[in-house]
Amino acid sequence: MNEQQALTPLAAGGLLDRRAFLQRSLSFSVATLVSSEALATPENGREPWMEKPGAPFSNYGEPAAHERHVIRWTMGNDKALGNGVSWTPLQNLEGIFTPNGLHFERHHNGVPQIDPKQHKLLIHGLVNNSLVFTLEDLLRYPMHSCYCFLECGGNSNAAWHSEPIQTAVGYFHGMASCSEWTGIPLKLLLDEAQVKGRAKWLIVEGADASMMQVSIPLDKALDDCLLALYQNGERIRPENGYPMRLIVPGWEGVLNVKWVRRIHLAAQPVMARNETAKYTELLPSGKARQFTYVMEVKSLITQPSFGYKLPQPGIYQITGLAWSGRGKIAKVEVSADGGKTWLEAELQEPVLSKCFTRFRIPWQWQGQEAILQSRATDETGARQPAREHLLAARGQHGYFHYNAIVSWEISAQGEIKHVYA
Amino acid sequence: MNEQQALTPLAAGGLLDRRAFLQRSLSFSVATLVSSEALATPENGREPWMEKPGAPFSNYGEPAAHERHVIRWTMGNDKALGNGVSWTPLQNLEGIFTPNGLHFERHHNGVPQIDPKQHKLLIHGLVNNSLVFTLEDLLRYPMHSCYCFLECGGNSNAAWHSEPIQTAVGYFHGMASCSEWTGIPLKLLLDEAQVKGRAKWLIVEGADASMMQVSIPLDKALDDCLLALYQNGERIRPENGYPMRLIVPGWEGVLNVKWVRRIHLAAQPVMARNETAKYTELLPSGKARQFTYVMEVKSLITQPSFGYKLPQPGIYQITGLAWSGRGKIAKVEVSADGGKTWLEAELQEPVLSKCFTRFRIPWQWQGQEAILQSRATDETGARQPAREHLLAARGQHGYFHYNAIVSWEISAQGEIKHVYA
Repeated sequence: MNEQQALTPLAAGGLLDRRAFLQRSLSFSVATLVSSEALATPENGREPWMEKPGAPFSNYGEPAAHERHVIRWTMGNDKALGNGVSWTPLQNLEGIFTPNGLHFERHHNGVPQIDPKQHKLLIHGLVNNSLVFTLEDLLRYPMHSCYCFLECGGNSNAAWHSEPIQTAVGYFHGMASCSEWTGIPLKLLLDEAQVKGRAKWLIVEGADASMMQVSIPLDKALDDCLLALYQNGERIRPENGYPMRLIVPGWEGVLNVKWVRRIHLAAQPVMARNETAKYTELLPSGKARQFTYVMEVKSLITQPSFGYKLPQPGIYQITGLAWSGRGKIAKVEVSADGGKTWLEAELQEPVLSKCFTRFRIPWQWQGQEAILQSRATDETGARQPAREHLLAARGQHGYFHYNAIVSWEISAQGEIKHVYA
Repeated sequence: MNEQQALTPLAAGGLLDRRAFLQRSLSFSVATLVSSEALATPENGREPWMEKPGAPFSNYGEPAAHERHVIRWTMGNDKALGNGVSWTPLQNLEGIFTPNGLHFERHHNGVPQIDPKQHKLLIHGLVNNSLVFTLEDLLRYPMHSCYCFLECGGNSNAAWHSEPIQTAVGYFHGMASCSEWTGIPLKLLLDEAQVKGRAKWLIVEGADASMMQVSIPLDKALDDCLLALYQNGERIRPENGYPMRLIVPGWEGVLNVKWVRRIHLAAQPVMARNETAKYTELLPSGKARQFTYVMEVKSLITQPSFGYKLPQPGIYQITGLAWSGRGKIAKVEVSADGGKTWLEAELQEPVLSKCFTRFRIPWQWQGQEAILQSRATDETGARQPAREHLLAARGQHGYFHYNAIVSWEISAQGEIKHVYA
């Protein structure tokens, strides 16, 4: 493949073969060509930080001062302090993992400050052995790690509005993050408690002041749920459920109960506020969806995206994230012409089940107006819907489980807007 | 498999089948059996943090106050301020990734505070195009992520001492950490510079006050090296090379130049201090090893380990980390009797090349004296050596590339010591 071939778009709007960069070097016309070597010698070109010893070491490192804008935006509820959201700034991140300090939060009553020596987990109800576990007990159990995304069932809900919201991708779709979670397979603890045959549900309760309760089918708990103690290597942080939380891979964030203190085995769900008044959806038919657990296949372009401006025509990388609560991502297609033509993006290896998958594709922008979109398909064959199809199926008044295609419009000046296309 | 079968050791000293826990529930006799449900109701058993709203949200989260002991220990050199080590506390971590705040550091002259707008990368020497890249330029290039460990060539060097050091595993073997690194394949940048045929080496220089220089063979640079901008999702932190560092998968840490500012293509290595006076090793034959780049296959048990005490006889999980600079880990065997018998541990999936691999195996301790060891084999068939074999090959006065088996002695009281066995 020569440079000319590499630069031949394979879809309209300038999308290039995802392997173009690997097969043939391209001139990006981005770097500055320098003619003199003088710049390069240690004697010249020395920056001020090379002239003196650097800062002292630290026991626990922090991001660079120049990156202090990379934070979670927080949104609180004036009428209910402690209720709100901390959004993951997806537009600033690369790869698939979310640093612990930037993992999204959906707060119900603030962040409890739990003494791990006093915290206990109770498993009771329809079991032969009611068991109480201290943290010290649990640390002796066999651990298991899984790589999985968490997404709030209400993520992206601004996209149900009739007008497209103009905000950074992270403050719109950033109630989704991804970690390596390590803990004890819930099955081990339930087997030790000896669950009775009549039990079909777990009613799980958190130890914060909102005392969140949710109902989880026993089959799911035995399949792949985890009582997590570690996130991305270290112990879970307070905002993520210290000292322990439930991980329910691929299902709504609200089920992943933080600060978990009690698992009650029952024949019926508890019908708590978060499974009746909230997290249910009225459909056009007049019926309501309830227990809509699985987070369906979804993707979005994180760069370029709202808030950035393309400085000049040239080659850019389009990148974003895809995920599905039903398994692995099979493919992500990208369009630069509002969905008329599509080209398959490269997926970051290894592609893991119920985990963020990073996609990337090169794009040659020649200064034209463009609409960038991504569309993911998972291994079950489920494909991310167009917005009009989602609205037709679910009505105009949705709030939860928005997973339609996201569109970024590029102007001839390189400015980027969120549009419905 | 019934409980009795599950508890039948498959190797001496009480090592159990690594699948025992998954196939059959075991009574750990760790949890407390409770007879009354009263404890469990929300009206009783309410902890103080359930009685009031929790703490406010934060823009960038921090570890729990109760986990403040989980830090990098730092060791400085009184005679050369800015020279030292920050150790990763491996004994406190689980899974395979190291949080950015706890990634190890080998400091040469402190931590430079670099303004990313002023920092530039120069590629010059035996190239047709001498190129200068700003950070803004680089952010437009195609990115790639790799999961890889970094290990200092001098990690574990206390094990060359004639007496076994008594310290936590992280303050002994903790110049090793693992991350998701994201950046630009070095091949792309070198291809754009058009490397001349005579060039065989990269001489890479960092922008700190020590102005570290190292030599890296061109073949390795074209194979899998990365100019990394992101670590575990976010931009690299100052201590790890902000705004950019080299990643040289599987090779000595010192080659992964932080704050990289200059890559000089040359026909010969530079023969800098760190490849002549340091990072070379006198062998029993009188010859010295030089350019010993690859970090060989290695493993160690992180729990239980020095500093912990087994509270009572019972079932424990033995867990640790294995890695190899030559590729994937093929297997890790564990011994509870000082190496007389071995049993294969479970490896955390997916097993990735040149990346930490977590291993785990259940162990029933009946109060006997025991010596715990792990022994890794990589996909090339290379196996971690016994200490006596390493010393026979490399002499008594080694300092670099220690990768022998690590032994923890358990006393009848459950106390744990480091021994040479």
